[in-house]
Amino acid sequence: MVFFDINALSGSARSGFISTARGKLATPLFMPVATQGSVKALDPQDLTELGTEIVLGNAYHLYLRPGDELIYGLGGLHKFMGWDGPILTDSGGFQGFSLEHLRDLHKDGITFRSHIDGSTHTLTPESIMKIQANLGSDIAMPLDVCLPSDAAYTSVSDGIETTFDWVQRCKNARKGENQVLFGIVQGGIYEDLRRESIDQMISLDMPGYSIGGLSVGEPKNQLYSTAGFTADLLPENKPRYLMGVGSPEDLVECVAVGVDMFDCVLPSRVARNGALYTKMGRFNITSSRFKNVDDPIDIECDCSTCIRFSAAYIHHLFKAKEYLAYRLATIHNLRFVIRLMEEMRTAISNGSFSEYRKGFLDNYRVADEAVRAKEREKWLKSSD
Amino acid sequence: MVFFDINALSGSARSGFISTARGKLATPLFMPVATQGSVKALDPQDLTELGTEIVLGNAYHLYLRPGDELIYGLGGLHKFMGWDGPILTDSGGFQGFSLEHLRDLHKDGITFRSHIDGSTHTLTPESIMKIQANLGSDIAMPLDVCLPSDAAYTSVSDGIETTFDWVQRCKNARKGENQVLFGIVQGGIYEDLRRESIDQMISLDMPGYSIGGLSVGEPKNQLYSTAGFTADLLPENKPRYLMGVGSPEDLVECVAVGVDMFDCVLPSRVARNGALYTKMGRFNITSSRFKNVDDPIDIECDCSTCIRFSAAYIHHLFKAKEYLAYRLATIHNLRFVIRLMEEMRTAISNGSFSEYRKGFLDNYRVADEAVRAKEREKWLKSSD
Repeated sequence: MVFFDINALSGSARSGFISTARGKLATPLFMPVATQGSVKALDPQDLTELGTEIVLGNAYHLYLRPGDELIYGLGGLHKFMGWDGPILTDSGGFQGFSLEHLRDLHKDGITFRSHIDGSTHTLTPESIMKIQANLGSDIAMPLDVCLPSDAAYTSVSDGIETTFDWVQRCKNARKGENQVLFGIVQGGIYEDLRRESIDQMISLDMPGYSIGGLSVGEPKNQLYSTAGFTADLLPENKPRYLMGVGSPEDLVECVAVGVDMFDCVLPSRVARNGALYTKMGRFNITSSRFKNVDDPIDIECDCSTCIRFSAAYIHHLFKAKEYLAYRLATIHNLRFVIRLMEEMRTAISNGSFSEYRKGFLDNYRVADEAVRAKEREKWLKSSD
Repeated sequence: MVFFDINALSGSARSGFISTARGKLATPLFMPVATQGSVKALDPQDLTELGTEIVLGNAYHLYLRPGDELIYGLGGLHKFMGWDGPILTDSGGFQGFSLEHLRDLHKDGITFRSHIDGSTHTLTPESIMKIQANLGSDIAMPLDVCLPSDAAYTSVSDGIETTFDWVQRCKNARKGENQVLFGIVQGGIYEDLRRESIDQMISLDMPGYSIGGLSVGEPKNQLYSTAGFTADLLPENKPRYLMGVGSPEDLVECVAVGVDMFDCVLPSRVARNGALYTKMGRFNITSSRFKNVDDPIDIECDCSTCIRFSAAYIHHLFKAKEYLAYRLATIHNLRFVIRLMEEMRTAISNGSFSEYRKGFLDNYRVADEAVRAKEREKWLKSSD
């Protein structure tokens, strides 16, 4: 079985399929994030209904709570969370960045103080593979060194060497045929270091490549150009996964430069704050303009929230702080980004991706950048 | 169409049907509480799946937010909240008790300071009927005077006179054939006042009678005996609705004395704190004993939570403070009490209710009374 199969190109954008033990995934794809074994406010049936192909779990979080050994004893993460589709697990490398004040990076791995109880834990390449084997995910990530966008050249240079060493150790520690291990390209915003990291990863002939160390504070145009530069240098026949991206416009721009896989907590996180996506941009449902609106949030949307409820009802639920608000808003935003991926796949297959992209971005009036920058800041500093 | 039809008796327990414009309801029944237009953490599909026949909305809360006029403009409460089954609306009389520090009871009605913004509002018998007409509920409650269990005889005596006057005014103000208005019996723990209030209500020939002013601080045995005494004196051919009750054991004991309808926030509220019902009593899922339990919360339970998830997963969701915890726990507890009603209906039809009751109560090891008393206290003092 070929792991990744491209069936159409439109410019640099690609559409294809990834084959896992738990089914075929159409790319480009977006993975909802189940950090702690639950996509916040949703259940597995919600995920299926909104078109989810694969979810992301976090090895660092699940190792700390409830424990990967416990999950293994209960039959693995799929059974534990009631999701029988594919799961990709993140390694904890990103938490080495986002929980900067709680960790010590060293040659052997990352030593964390738990964000839950302050206890000390060391994740090594070998232990993270053991954890991910216990979780039983379909796609595993190696431990990597993820640094902020303003990291000095020498730190980033050291970081890619350590990452190269760790990925090799992860590859050697990998067990079981059903779990695929990706490589991770780092190198910050430095083209020569990105190039070096890419060469290192290609030398390991991994089945897929993650692009790490982006969406960590750099400006948008640098995110897009670095993603594109990296994608161009990666082998065409392997999937490219841009970690931690993104917003609707980021998804469109990064599919345009040849990225195949994405994950991000942003769509669900902003949903819980009432910020809801539409083709005309992002709106905050708590605004009084929605108080009396009998139409759904987005009249073109096919999500179960928009089919069943008015914008006025969602507005009311947020004002009344009802739990249902968070679930309905999350369903809407995740369906929005997953439908966006579906539409991009169709456009790529039709050879009309550049028109689709232009049409989308022309309509999508991006909310005030200052507001979003603030949200992004909060997000990066949290553990999720 | 007969509004209420009894099809079986077993001792004082009755099973039958209430016919509303939106369908037939099997009694005895339990109404999940959608105070603000949402049963906390659930959506209408959840309610249908767990066997909900009718939900309760609160006129006081919905009048304040989002406003009954707004809901009327959007097509009524059923459409607003996406629930097309029957709805009963509570009048605000109970909030006159539970928000004691925020209200002034007078002959014309109840003047509240809003618990949301402190603004002043007067609910009169006429305005509460207007509000409920705007909401479009299938069964409406009149405004009543609900007093604490330790209220003095003279206060309770005054209270029933005022309630009698208000119920008559509500009856005169009622509009529309599709909304049924109940009477409400008050009288606290005083048998002669209960008897007087019952006579007053019977003289008005209402289609159904609520039993108010119980579960407001009195001991359990007094709740049961007063409910039984009241039920005995009410006409046999009218449904009897015991407001704000209750726990599983309260439901069984009060069906035993002839009550047909119940509502209570307790099952859903304790669920959100992790206290889950089983036939063997109430357990707190956050206890470490559940950390590793691969079985569902209750192996005999047919709810969508128990069918899909282990106790260990629910335990983890509570520990991780995941929103999904509240939904799954609420589904379980509400299904528990609704299945309890279903089982009691069957037992009544089979003439085996007293055996059912004994079997249930023998198995159901009631949690420490001190703990429950504390929870009840918090509940009574809240606005929900």
